[in-house]
Amino acid sequence: MANITTRRTIRKYTAEDVPSDLLNELLKKAERTQTMGNLQLYSVVTTRDPANKARLAPLHFNQPMVQDAPVVLTFCADFHRTTEWAKRRKGQPGYNNILSFLNAASDALLFCQTFCHLAEEAGLGLCYLGTTVYNPSGIIDALALPRLVMPVATITLGWPAEEPPLTDRLPLSAILHEEKYQPITDESIDRDYRYKESLPENQRFVEENQKETLAQVFTDCRYTKRDNEALSATLLEALRRQGFLD
Amino acid sequence: MANITTRRTIRKYTAEDVPSDLLNELLKKAERTQTMGNLQLYSVVTTRDPANKARLAPLHFNQPMVQDAPVVLTFCADFHRTTEWAKRRKGQPGYNNILSFLNAASDALLFCQTFCHLAEEAGLGLCYLGTTVYNPSGIIDALALPRLVMPVATITLGWPAEEPPLTDRLPLSAILHEEKYQPITDESIDRDYRYKESLPENQRFVEENQKETLAQVFTDCRYTKRDNEALSATLLEALRRQGFLD
Repeated sequence: MANITTRRTIRKYTAEDVPSDLLNELLKKAERTQTMGNLQLYSVVTTRDPANKARLAPLHFNQPMVQDAPVVLTFCADFHRTTEWAKRRKGQPGYNNILSFLNAASDALLFCQTFCHLAEEAGLGLCYLGTTVYNPSGIIDALALPRLVMPVATITLGWPAEEPPLTDRLPLSAILHEEKYQPITDESIDRDYRYKESLPENQRFVEENQKETLAQVFTDCRYTKRDNEALSATLLEALRRQGFLD
Repeated sequence: MANITTRRTIRKYTAEDVPSDLLNELLKKAERTQTMGNLQLYSVVTTRDPANKARLAPLHFNQPMVQDAPVVLTFCADFHRTTEWAKRRKGQPGYNNILSFLNAASDALLFCQTFCHLAEEAGLGLCYLGTTVYNPSGIIDALALPRLVMPVATITLGWPAEEPPLTDRLPLSAILHEEKYQPITDESIDRDYRYKESLPENQRFVEENQKETLAQVFTDCRYTKRDNEALSATLLEALRRQGFLD
């Protein structure tokens, strides 16, 4: 983890491939991640075929990394495999519910993050796509995911062809609460957000979006109430389709 | 990540404390984790006070680590701080929905997992408690979590006083799918679960629970349909209470 303080999201990759042997070795190591009851409630689908990448691309709002990266990995919350195992072993599986989705999603995300650290330590660069939960049904179709499998994260992976500047982070006081959650106040907001708001790159971001404040760029342009509500309906529909809201 | 292949969950700790300076340094480094729109949609509440640990313990089914560990960390999906920031900056936040919960939960879990790797690299031992989502309302009360803050993971942390054997993992073929999700078959189940089922510790587990198969221990004893359905109702109630299902 020596490189954690200098890690950056990588969106541009060289033409060099990521060998299957290396990828498999990293995934195998990532399997050491803690998991609920040692059940490993996750799976990962790799996409290398250009035709399949082209199908995924619009589902991730055509972010160019999806077609440019040598490999795309979709991490899934997976209670299907465990359920199929139990069915063949006289068990009575009951995982078609929201708790089981959250348990499997947790397993998948922890596994994904261990994989990210291992990949970066091997010199690879990656971009985490949050768009996975925006169009889950399209991804379910593209990857032929059965019931009780739900995509929760996507990583584009390759050898870095850029070194972007480090992005800012909030001071620890913003995220750390001792014993109880400390109330947010005008003073704590100023203390924790002043530095972020002062940065030239963030001020430019405000100007480009023709807003008054940085917060407005997020709430009024990038992650709006209207979009969040529409996408929440889509998400619930996909969870129902995959059998997690029976 | 050199120690990833030998990591184990640690449930017994020495009497030595985990200094705040060390803990803060690890949390600060973990903040480098990728996050949605660089918003850091998470917070962490630390519990060191024995009275507060005693309050948390029954919410985690009295697993002894909660009271025995020098520090307990509860990782939360947090859209409250971002919403409060936006309200003071003329923004129009709209994060009282399920998509926003999943986005914030993802941020919190990725951050948590980076923290786990950093802590283990520093020689600390930890246990990840999946019970956090079983009694969320009790935890919300104990930690005074406001609306739009939802606990998603708990870590008990200390200096290791045990070195338990490594637990088994499924072969890579169980979790890896190339291009499309490959159908699960009788053959793939046998191939992927035979080793796990053959292990003496897992056979003992079957005997102790007076079951016929290992799968039954999970489906019929540890994670039953009945419990999952009751706990799903509790989970939905807590998400509604915290404002994520408006």
